[in-house]
Amino acid sequence: MAIKFEVVAKDASTRARVGRLHTPHGVVETPAFMPVGTAGTVKGITQGQLEALGVQMLLANTYHLYLRPGHEVVREMGGLHRFMGWPHPILTDSGGYQVMSLKGLGRVTEDGVWFRSHLDGSSHFLSPERAVEIQLALGADIAMILDECVEYPASHEALKRAVKLTSRWAGRCKKAFEEQGARDQEKEEPGVRSHESVVRQIPNPESRTPNPALFGIVQGGTDLDLRRESAEEILAMSFEGYGLGGLSVGEPKAETYDVAEFTAALLPEEKPRYLMGVGTPQDLVECVARGIDMFDCVLPTRNARNGCVFTSQGKLVIKNARYARDGGALDPACTCMVCQRYTRSYIRHLFVVGEMLAGILATYHNLYFYLDTMRKVRQAIEFGTFGDFRARVRGGP
Amino acid sequence: MAIKFEVVAKDASTRARVGRLHTPHGVVETPAFMPVGTAGTVKGITQGQLEALGVQMLLANTYHLYLRPGHEVVREMGGLHRFMGWPHPILTDSGGYQVMSLKGLGRVTEDGVWFRSHLDGSSHFLSPERAVEIQLALGADIAMILDECVEYPASHEALKRAVKLTSRWAGRCKKAFEEQGARDQEKEEPGVRSHESVVRQIPNPESRTPNPALFGIVQGGTDLDLRRESAEEILAMSFEGYGLGGLSVGEPKAETYDVAEFTAALLPEEKPRYLMGVGTPQDLVECVARGIDMFDCVLPTRNARNGCVFTSQGKLVIKNARYARDGGALDPACTCMVCQRYTRSYIRHLFVVGEMLAGILATYHNLYFYLDTMRKVRQAIEFGTFGDFRARVRGGP
Repeated sequence: MAIKFEVVAKDASTRARVGRLHTPHGVVETPAFMPVGTAGTVKGITQGQLEALGVQMLLANTYHLYLRPGHEVVREMGGLHRFMGWPHPILTDSGGYQVMSLKGLGRVTEDGVWFRSHLDGSSHFLSPERAVEIQLALGADIAMILDECVEYPASHEALKRAVKLTSRWAGRCKKAFEEQGARDQEKEEPGVRSHESVVRQIPNPESRTPNPALFGIVQGGTDLDLRRESAEEILAMSFEGYGLGGLSVGEPKAETYDVAEFTAALLPEEKPRYLMGVGTPQDLVECVARGIDMFDCVLPTRNARNGCVFTSQGKLVIKNARYARDGGALDPACTCMVCQRYTRSYIRHLFVVGEMLAGILATYHNLYFYLDTMRKVRQAIEFGTFGDFRARVRGGP
Repeated sequence: MAIKFEVVAKDASTRARVGRLHTPHGVVETPAFMPVGTAGTVKGITQGQLEALGVQMLLANTYHLYLRPGHEVVREMGGLHRFMGWPHPILTDSGGYQVMSLKGLGRVTEDGVWFRSHLDGSSHFLSPERAVEIQLALGADIAMILDECVEYPASHEALKRAVKLTSRWAGRCKKAFEEQGARDQEKEEPGVRSHESVVRQIPNPESRTPNPALFGIVQGGTDLDLRRESAEEILAMSFEGYGLGGLSVGEPKAETYDVAEFTAALLPEEKPRYLMGVGTPQDLVECVARGIDMFDCVLPTRNARNGCVFTSQGKLVIKNARYARDGGALDPACTCMVCQRYTRSYIRHLFVVGEMLAGILATYHNLYFYLDTMRKVRQAIEFGTFGDFRARVRGGP
C-alpha cells in the first residue's frame, strides 16, 4: 500500500469526516484543499509562503509540465519535489482534462487523446500508459488515471461512452502503473553525473518518489445511474483513492452537491475521496458534509489575480473606487499576514497601478482564507460543532 | 536637527566610512543601499521579505505617488509608512529627475517644471515648494530638493545653468520645508474621522513623520569646477545631508568615479553623502571607497525581472538554455533563501513559462546580493580589511 488513509473523526449528523492521509512526502490532514501549482508554482507565491500558509499538498498539472520544461527534465532534476523545492506531498492530474478542454485542439480515440500544444501547435498523443509514465517521471505522491471528462450538458450517450472509456482507460492505467512502478524500483537510477552537477548539487536518486499511489476517477455527469455504473466499474479495480470527475463543468450548483453526495456514498469509507476542480469556500464546506476529503480549485488564486478576494463578509472586488481611502483590512476578521499589515486602500492602489505585489497579496490572502476554512472545518468536525459551522457559512455575513 | 549621523569607523587608506544614520523611523547603517519602491512597493517583494532581506531604508518616487494614488490619499491614509505597511525609514526623491526624463513631456522654467502625466497626458506643475509639499504629505524621513539634472553629454552652458537653477531651487525648497514643517507641527491633525475608519483602523495622527530631513543636491555634470561651485552654493545653505546628482546619466564609468570622489571630498565629514541612481555592486564598493554613504538604484530589481542576476561569479542570464538542467543555485556562494531552496533549472523554467515567481525569486536574490555586499563593506571597513575586500570585488571571479 503506497499511501495510508485513516479516518480520525466523524460528524454525527452528516457524512463529514476528518482524516489523515499518509503519503511518501508526509501527512495531509483532510478535509484538505490543494492549491493549484500549474507549472510547478502557485502563481505569485513562494514555496516558503505556501509552508507559512499551512499548505500540506499541492496539485500540479501534468499537461503544462509535460510541455514545459518536459517531464524528462523534471525527472533528471530529481523529480518535481526537488525541481520546485517543495518537499511535501504533490498530486498530479493526468493531463486529460486540460487536453480535452483545448477547444478544437484535441481528439479522443479508444487508444488515447491526440492534441496540439497550445504553445506551438505541435502534435502530441496522451494514452493511459503515457499519462502514467509522465506522472511517475514527475514523481507525484498521488497520480490520477486518464479519464474522459464530458462538459455539461451532455447527451446520455456521450456520458455513457465517457464512463465506459474511462473504465477501460482506468484498467490500462492501473496495469501500466503497476508495471512501470515495478520497473522503477528495479532500475538503478544513475542520477545526473555531469561534472557541473557533481561540483554543485547531485540530484539524489532517493528523491524519486517511492511507492506513489494511483487514484481512480468516477465519471457519469449528472446522471446518477451512470455514476453508479462508473463507480462500480472503477471500484472493481481497487484504487488507493477515488476522484469525482466531471463536476463543476457548468451544471447547476444543486446538482454538483447532489451528485457529489450520491457518488461519495458509493465509495468505500476507508479510501480518500477527491472532488476535482471544486469550488468556492461554501462549496467546500457543503461537499465536506457530503463525504468529500480532498479538493483543488483555481478560484482562490485566479480570482486573486483579478482583484477578487474572499472574506468572511463575502467576495470583495478590491479595485473598486470605494476602497481608495479604506484603511481597513481586506477582511477585518482575518489574521493572515496580508490583513495584519496592509490596508484595502494600499492593495487597491497596487491593482490600479498594476504592481506585482497586488496579485501576490491577494493570492496569499485568498489561499489563507481557503486553508483557514478547511482548518475550521476539521476542528468543527472534531469538536462536534460542524453543523453550527456549516450553518454560519451558509448564512453568510 | 531632524536626523543624526555619526561616523563610527573609517578606513585607513580610502575615504570609506561606516556610519549610523538616525531617522524618525529608525537607524540606517551606512554605507547603505536603498531598494527602489517606485509606487510604494519594491516590485515583486513583500514588505516582510524586505525586512527579512535586512533592508533598512527604501526609496520611493514622488512623481509616481503624486500621480497615483495621489499624495493627498497617502497623507489621509496616515502617510507612506502606514499606507504601504513599512514602519522603517523612507527617502523620497523630489520628482524632478523623473519629470525631466519624460522626453518631450516636460518643460523647465525658472519657477519649476511643467510636465504632462505619462498616464493620461494631463498637465501638472512641479515647483520647489510643491516638491516639498508633496514629500511632506508622503511623510518621508528624508526629502530631496528639486534639482535640475542634465544628461550627458551637455554643454558647459547647460551644466552651468542647471547648477545655478538648482541652487536657487534649493533655497526655495529649504524655505518651504522650514515653513511647511513648522505649520505641520502647529496643526492639530484630526485624522480620518469617517464612521468606516472608526470601526476599523483610525490612521494615527502620530504616524505623520515628525522632524523629517531635507537633503541638498550637488550638480555640475562631469565639470569639476562646476561641481565645486555647486557644492559651495549648496553647502552655504546647510542641509542635513547631500545628494550627488547628475551622475550615472551616460558618462563613462571612470568619470562617475572621479566626479564622485571629487565631490564627496568637498562635503562635510559629519553629513551623509548620497550618490543618486548608482549602480552595479562594484560601483557601490568603488564609490564607498570615495566617501559615499548612501545609494539607490533600480539595477538589482529591474535586471532581476529581465532574468539577469548578480552573483559572486559575475552576471548570469538565467533564461539561457544552458541552465535548463543546471541543478546548482543561482550563486553557489550565496546563502539567500532563493539560493538555498531553488535551482537554476527551476528558475529558468519559471522565466521561460512567464511565471510571477520568476521575477520574485530573481529580485529577492539580487536584492540580497546588494544588501549582502553592503554588509560585507561595512564589516570590512570596521575590521580594517576594506582594501582586500575591494580588491576581490575588482578582481571579479
